[in-house]
Amino acid sequence: MLIVKKFGGTSVGNTTRIKNVAERIAKEYRAGNDVIVVLSAMDQTTDELLALAKELNEQPPRREMDALLATGEQTSVALMAMALSAMSIPAISLNAFQVAMHSTATHMNARLLKIDTDRLKHELESKKVVLVTGFQGLDKYGDVTTIGRGGSDTTAVAIAAAMHADSCEIYTDVDGVYTADPRIVPKAQKETEITYDEMLELASIGAQVLHNRSVELAKKYGVTLVVRSSLNESEGTRVKEVTSVESMLVSGVAADKNAARITVVGVPDVPGSEFKIFDLLANNSINVDAILQTAAKEGKKDVSILVAREFVEKAVHVLEENMPRLKGSCVETDTSVAKVSIVGASIQSNPGVASAMFEALYNVGINIKMTATNELRITVLVDENEMEKAVRAIHAALIE
Amino acid sequence: MLIVKKFGGTSVGNTTRIKNVAERIAKEYRAGNDVIVVLSAMDQTTDELLALAKELNEQPPRREMDALLATGEQTSVALMAMALSAMSIPAISLNAFQVAMHSTATHMNARLLKIDTDRLKHELESKKVVLVTGFQGLDKYGDVTTIGRGGSDTTAVAIAAAMHADSCEIYTDVDGVYTADPRIVPKAQKETEITYDEMLELASIGAQVLHNRSVELAKKYGVTLVVRSSLNESEGTRVKEVTSVESMLVSGVAADKNAARITVVGVPDVPGSEFKIFDLLANNSINVDAILQTAAKEGKKDVSILVAREFVEKAVHVLEENMPRLKGSCVETDTSVAKVSIVGASIQSNPGVASAMFEALYNVGINIKMTATNELRITVLVDENEMEKAVRAIHAALIE
Repeated sequence: MLIVKKFGGTSVGNTTRIKNVAERIAKEYRAGNDVIVVLSAMDQTTDELLALAKELNEQPPRREMDALLATGEQTSVALMAMALSAMSIPAISLNAFQVAMHSTATHMNARLLKIDTDRLKHELESKKVVLVTGFQGLDKYGDVTTIGRGGSDTTAVAIAAAMHADSCEIYTDVDGVYTADPRIVPKAQKETEITYDEMLELASIGAQVLHNRSVELAKKYGVTLVVRSSLNESEGTRVKEVTSVESMLVSGVAADKNAARITVVGVPDVPGSEFKIFDLLANNSINVDAILQTAAKEGKKDVSILVAREFVEKAVHVLEENMPRLKGSCVETDTSVAKVSIVGASIQSNPGVASAMFEALYNVGINIKMTATNELRITVLVDENEMEKAVRAIHAALIE
Repeated sequence: MLIVKKFGGTSVGNTTRIKNVAERIAKEYRAGNDVIVVLSAMDQTTDELLALAKELNEQPPRREMDALLATGEQTSVALMAMALSAMSIPAISLNAFQVAMHSTATHMNARLLKIDTDRLKHELESKKVVLVTGFQGLDKYGDVTTIGRGGSDTTAVAIAAAMHADSCEIYTDVDGVYTADPRIVPKAQKETEITYDEMLELASIGAQVLHNRSVELAKKYGVTLVVRSSLNESEGTRVKEVTSVESMLVSGVAADKNAARITVVGVPDVPGSEFKIFDLLANNSINVDAILQTAAKEGKKDVSILVAREFVEKAVHVLEENMPRLKGSCVETDTSVAKVSIVGASIQSNPGVASAMFEALYNVGINIKMTATNELRITVLVDENEMEKAVRAIHAALIE
């Protein structure tokens, strides 16, 4: 079996942890498996490098930021090779150049294009554990790129796809994907299996276990992902195209406080009003989570949009500046809101799920400020102070 | 003009110093010159990385040590590019891969073989300051190598040679090569010019201003070296094949406490006795600085050798083990000695120099324990407590 394992910055944050991870890798290797390991930078390293860069240049050239940050993962893989070697496990570290991991030339946000497999195969054939730098690529000019924060997950999946690995294990500080955040819902259950689409929906609404792009890539190439803990031997959650266990109607309840509602009050009730707003925000690179309009009254209506909080200021500015064209009366914002969502492959075909969710919230007296749905998910907007209460009520009614 | 500049770890030890070096580079660039800069790792970085490695593995694989240590210079060059960019000086960092700096595959002690000049030329043509990682190479397997401690000097010279640079400036914490250590001899004078051979002799006897291999390489390719201070604008010392100023008879007095005398007492006064000792030590990788025999008495003589102190234990062990074959009576050691040498291109053709040196020592009552000479240098062995007094006496008599 060929197993790709990815360990994040916390798992390799000091030499004790590096040794623990090495033990884990050694166990897999001694069981007779081929092992490729993708590592992130030691957790404080990236921040230290960023601080140095900032002291020298408030806006450092992106190419040089990539050259600088890439040293973090190179340090991790070399140190891990030493730790394995001390346990008599043959190991070799490879950086993006050496693999090579070809990427686009968009520094600090490159996309992996193609992974050469010759050297990886050669090293595996000589029975070495292969340690690869996560997060980085090599562009057509021979320069180092990085693929954005959390990108090591993507590196691991891309390698698993290129090498036709049997599985790609992502090690985190939780031991799998849960039906809700266990800190909020003590009765939350660990999922044994979950589909790529469910995982993507959960990730997009705040259950940040896996990097989104890595799940999309795993889906595209049919790579089985396993989310598991670096702290214990628990089985973890398998993320795949079709789950073999009987699918739960609702696979999870997720919550996210990074939400704000912006309302453009009193726009004309004519076709195109919503489109104008949506188009305006899109042209200004503001991601809109959901858009909703009230029933028209006297030829006027209110249009509400849902955005992440970091976009509020910019969105309000853009909307107010364009008010003459939008023909609205004013812009109102509400930043003390939270999104609570249920995710499940069968939600679309079970209209009863939505009403059960609303009833659960009604029973505990929580007011729904806005609702948005897609095939796999129903999201409600509630007051942020009521977020945890909402998650518990929905989890109790639909999952427990 | 194309100038190659090399700054060591102390010069880039923190962001303030990096900015100072950047100012210096900017000045050269603004004067209309093409500039290639070779940097070492920030001075504490290498030690930090070595400490991490040692925590994981007492004897880390050499390939991985190189992969680890190479991140140090990569950090320096990326940070310097940011500092220059903040001053609106276009700059680009290149590591050994990107240049490429081809080397042998002897990890931790590789030799540079060939430097590709295409990318360097291309970046200079686009009017960028090119920042290159010192100390490292790329072997035929595509792996990172390092070329030994102090190797950044060699990197700079190799690049200057490959690019036919007009000069190669090595920045240090002293502002040039002096006729003696100014801490010992306050009247020591800075040399304006010195030949490669004189520099090599000075370096080999303890005036550690330049890495030996870098001087040999500069000599081989006729690269003019300039040793100058990173702290002031002083002109420094030029190291070249032929000096244009009238050559001083004695270009410098150097001293080195890292010396020990080992004497094999009572070996037979027959041909081959000295050769046997020399051969034995060479086969055990012990470098012998000098070998000397006393006049024979009753068919027996004493043979003394001069070695660096770290070799004493091993040398004594090897000699005692082979005493039956050497037919000597015992081995004596003296580790409280120091070497004091004068260096100069004209020493060989001026026998008066040696006697003037001996006279100077006699006049201050210093006993000479041993003498060794070559074309460019006369070395005497004195008691280590008398080393500084000897240097001052010789400097006063022959240079001042």
